[in-house]
Amino acid sequence: MLPLPTSVRPQGGAFTLRETTGLGGDRRFIAASRWLRGVLQASTGFDLDARIDLRTDSIAFIHDGAVVPGGYHLEVGAEGVRIAASDASGAFSGAVTLTQLLPAEANRRALVRGVDWTVQATIIDDEPRFGWRGVMLDVARHFLPKADVLRFIDLAARHKLNVLHFHLTDDQGWRVEIDAFPRLTEVGGWRTESQHGAARHAPGDGRPHGGFYTKDDLREIVAYAADRSITVVPEIDLPGHARAIIAAYPELAVPDVAQDADEPSVWTRWGINEAILDMGEETVAFFRTVFDEVMEVFPSTFIGVGGDEAKKARWAASARTQALMAERGLASVEELQAWFIRQLEAHLAAAGRRLYGWDEILEGGGLPQGATVASWRGEFGAVAAARSGHDVIACPDDRVYLDYRESDDPREPIPVGPPLTIAEVYALEPVPAELTDDEAKHVIGVQANIWTEHMDSARVIDYQAYPRLCALAEVAWVGRERDFAGFESRLEQHLERLDALGVEYRRASGPMPWQERPDAEGRPSTREQRAALVAELTKDIRA
Amino acid sequence: MLPLPTSVRPQGGAFTLRETTGLGGDRRFIAASRWLRGVLQASTGFDLDARIDLRTDSIAFIHDGAVVPGGYHLEVGAEGVRIAASDASGAFSGAVTLTQLLPAEANRRALVRGVDWTVQATIIDDEPRFGWRGVMLDVARHFLPKADVLRFIDLAARHKLNVLHFHLTDDQGWRVEIDAFPRLTEVGGWRTESQHGAARHAPGDGRPHGGFYTKDDLREIVAYAADRSITVVPEIDLPGHARAIIAAYPELAVPDVAQDADEPSVWTRWGINEAILDMGEETVAFFRTVFDEVMEVFPSTFIGVGGDEAKKARWAASARTQALMAERGLASVEELQAWFIRQLEAHLAAAGRRLYGWDEILEGGGLPQGATVASWRGEFGAVAAARSGHDVIACPDDRVYLDYRESDDPREPIPVGPPLTIAEVYALEPVPAELTDDEAKHVIGVQANIWTEHMDSARVIDYQAYPRLCALAEVAWVGRERDFAGFESRLEQHLERLDALGVEYRRASGPMPWQERPDAEGRPSTREQRAALVAELTKDIRA
Repeated sequence: MLPLPTSVRPQGGAFTLRETTGLGGDRRFIAASRWLRGVLQASTGFDLDARIDLRTDSIAFIHDGAVVPGGYHLEVGAEGVRIAASDASGAFSGAVTLTQLLPAEANRRALVRGVDWTVQATIIDDEPRFGWRGVMLDVARHFLPKADVLRFIDLAARHKLNVLHFHLTDDQGWRVEIDAFPRLTEVGGWRTESQHGAARHAPGDGRPHGGFYTKDDLREIVAYAADRSITVVPEIDLPGHARAIIAAYPELAVPDVAQDADEPSVWTRWGINEAILDMGEETVAFFRTVFDEVMEVFPSTFIGVGGDEAKKARWAASARTQALMAERGLASVEELQAWFIRQLEAHLAAAGRRLYGWDEILEGGGLPQGATVASWRGEFGAVAAARSGHDVIACPDDRVYLDYRESDDPREPIPVGPPLTIAEVYALEPVPAELTDDEAKHVIGVQANIWTEHMDSARVIDYQAYPRLCALAEVAWVGRERDFAGFESRLEQHLERLDALGVEYRRASGPMPWQERPDAEGRPSTREQRAALVAELTKDIRA
Repeated sequence: MLPLPTSVRPQGGAFTLRETTGLGGDRRFIAASRWLRGVLQASTGFDLDARIDLRTDSIAFIHDGAVVPGGYHLEVGAEGVRIAASDASGAFSGAVTLTQLLPAEANRRALVRGVDWTVQATIIDDEPRFGWRGVMLDVARHFLPKADVLRFIDLAARHKLNVLHFHLTDDQGWRVEIDAFPRLTEVGGWRTESQHGAARHAPGDGRPHGGFYTKDDLREIVAYAADRSITVVPEIDLPGHARAIIAAYPELAVPDVAQDADEPSVWTRWGINEAILDMGEETVAFFRTVFDEVMEVFPSTFIGVGGDEAKKARWAASARTQALMAERGLASVEELQAWFIRQLEAHLAAAGRRLYGWDEILEGGGLPQGATVASWRGEFGAVAAARSGHDVIACPDDRVYLDYRESDDPREPIPVGPPLTIAEVYALEPVPAELTDDEAKHVIGVQANIWTEHMDSARVIDYQAYPRLCALAEVAWVGRERDFAGFESRLEQHLERLDALGVEYRRASGPMPWQERPDAEGRPSTREQRAALVAELTKDIRA
């Protein structure tokens, strides 16, 4: 099983699924029940209808208020399977565990003949370490079609991840339909070409790229994820990474600072664009409207506002911005960004939501208490945020950025960043050692981040994400004490499940020949280089 | 509805799906029933459990031997829906029709709130014109991941297509695992790069491409298709289009004729490669084994052997081949290919299967009666085959090759061939006018062909296939008399379904900016140029 359950007690005997097996139980767990029926019906061909009899031959979901939230109690005996939970998320995790107790063929989407659908009797008690077990998917750098997003979500759910941080906008594309501002997708939803590889001097590929999700698509994605106990947390990245916005609505740019020659087109290069939003009231009003529409589609408590890597030097060079700062009594551009984040926070809070941003939102001071920080530049943000009472999601780049190459094998496709092996992902301890127990409670989760500059299809995402995301899922679920050797041996069985699911994961031996990218140059760095850069970048929040 | 049913008689009243609606019926129609439940449960959120009561509030599948095979009788009344059929295929088509009577939101994969799931009362009697309503998908030129193949199949099924002609091998890649000959996938399953665009002088893109399906994957694809009443007809293309085979097993090539300098690597160019198999007994034995393994995976009556575009001039230049011909009393290279096809036919027939090949198998004479011809070069093959008593699938390139550009709009991505508008697809009459009624009975079906040289993802396949495949589906289902204006108006509603399904179809206005391919040159021709070429190519079968 993967992630490893808290307690597994094998029992004598076994249960065999058959044509007559029933599947059902407490109505509160209808989503888990339906998902499990869909999975098992497809591969076994059995009806598994809802007429269950608790005494014999059934898989039953049972409500039990004594089970910890998010956890489950699973019993397999000769008479059937009982999955007890106190909430839908726990019931769903129990359902996932059951699929992992069955032969790997249970993961195929149509009838597999000649399989003995027997499960050894067992008693499992299980609960997650973190309430936020996340994965961030960047659909801005490369648009991922809806069908692939749904598949990505289902795969994440099968690893008991429960948050999809959905990075919907960036310099290279705006992917969410906003009725009030149609140019965001009409203009911002596509670019004329993409940089071919990671090297600074990389050429453009000449091929247009684009796409966006309608609101109905996003509602479908949200509902599909909810059926799998996954919350979709949308991110609208502001006030930097804003070039697609400025391409669509140039009036939102700082007006009195020179623009790049090719602005305001949607960016066709990778890296950090100079474009930054003007901090006038018009911008705030614009994004209040945007977030109103975003909140209408995404019921998530947390709403992402980005906040990362804004090129504030352009504000510093703007007389208009300086005047705005003076007017507002702000002493630095960091304070100006903090002011902007507070405006958004107030708007989200008024709607009962919580702001979620990258650890740069700690800079400039005055971050409202409810704001939650994704700590990505080492542990520095996590420490600073937790100490100042903010909730934190740990996602240190050197442990969870799955765009980083998996090894220093020269065959790795478009290598970027330092090598990040599956063992290193597995070794992540999300709670910084220097935090006190009270501070540590603010670390409410952990997530992997999938930046897609160099992932132009679901096939490449498969390669970069798996099996490292399996390791992250175990970090998120299991306690501090973990055994990599045991994980490796369970992973070997788990890869059979991924094979059945059609996941084109990275083999331990490295890329298959067709997963290599000799055509596109990378930009690898060492761990030491990266650590030095992060130390430099986080001077402000460490101070 | 699309395709248009044979008879639709609107009635008074309506039926509304609700939480309590049951869905079930005759066990023989369990696949249709499960598919429909999955579709409707996802979008409505209703249980639709199997406890049905024919008197009230249910969707019921009923066996009725009086309904024509493949057809169905559908009644919607206040009390529920009845779908009567005499076979599983008819029941499935009835289920598809019901999804089209519901709001387009029924096609989404998760709960849609606020929809009134009401169907107006109606009585529909419907039956298909052709028993073979096909689409050919080329996964050799570009490998399509399993998840995308399953999605392609589900979309085809929603258009009442019932055959997937699966083009699994070609010069540019071999996609099917064969246990006896592992190098077919190890070596033949990938290429070092792909030609960038259609122009003769197009450069290579430098990016490796590959992938293959395991036998378990293929069994899953077959079973998933069967659940949707689609038969998967595999094609192993021989004796030409064989360069991936020869790359893997060079000993299968004609030994005494000069090879291209870069042979025997898997081909990285588009077009027709010179590589051709040696016609010794070893080759026949090799492919007997290959087809044994193929037949083990694919239960289809029809098994494709290709037969198209073999460069027989290389046989003519081979002393060894001339000796083989003399030994076998064969007077021409056409007769040699016909001999080879007969060897395969005998092997397939011994296993109770029927050989299926492109219309070149008519050349050289002696084609066994059971062999079925895919007539692709105009109508010539269809006429010749039907007159000589062979069954025919009509797929004339100028009407159904969906890689051909949809218009002469210069924005069409990588234009190849003559323009092929949706109106032209719709106007196809699969039965050549010159056939007598008796001869015409041999035209047992029609199919669209999707060659993927320039379709490197499911997104591009969506663009090229839809909505033209909707027109082909109506050609395959509806009789000779069709009304394009009516189709166009129904298509407008149908596009809402495709939107819900996430199909990135071509807009009537042309490609979206990101669907253009300014980076890759095409190789368009006119209808006249194409017709002249086809006339030249088919001299032999017309004689």
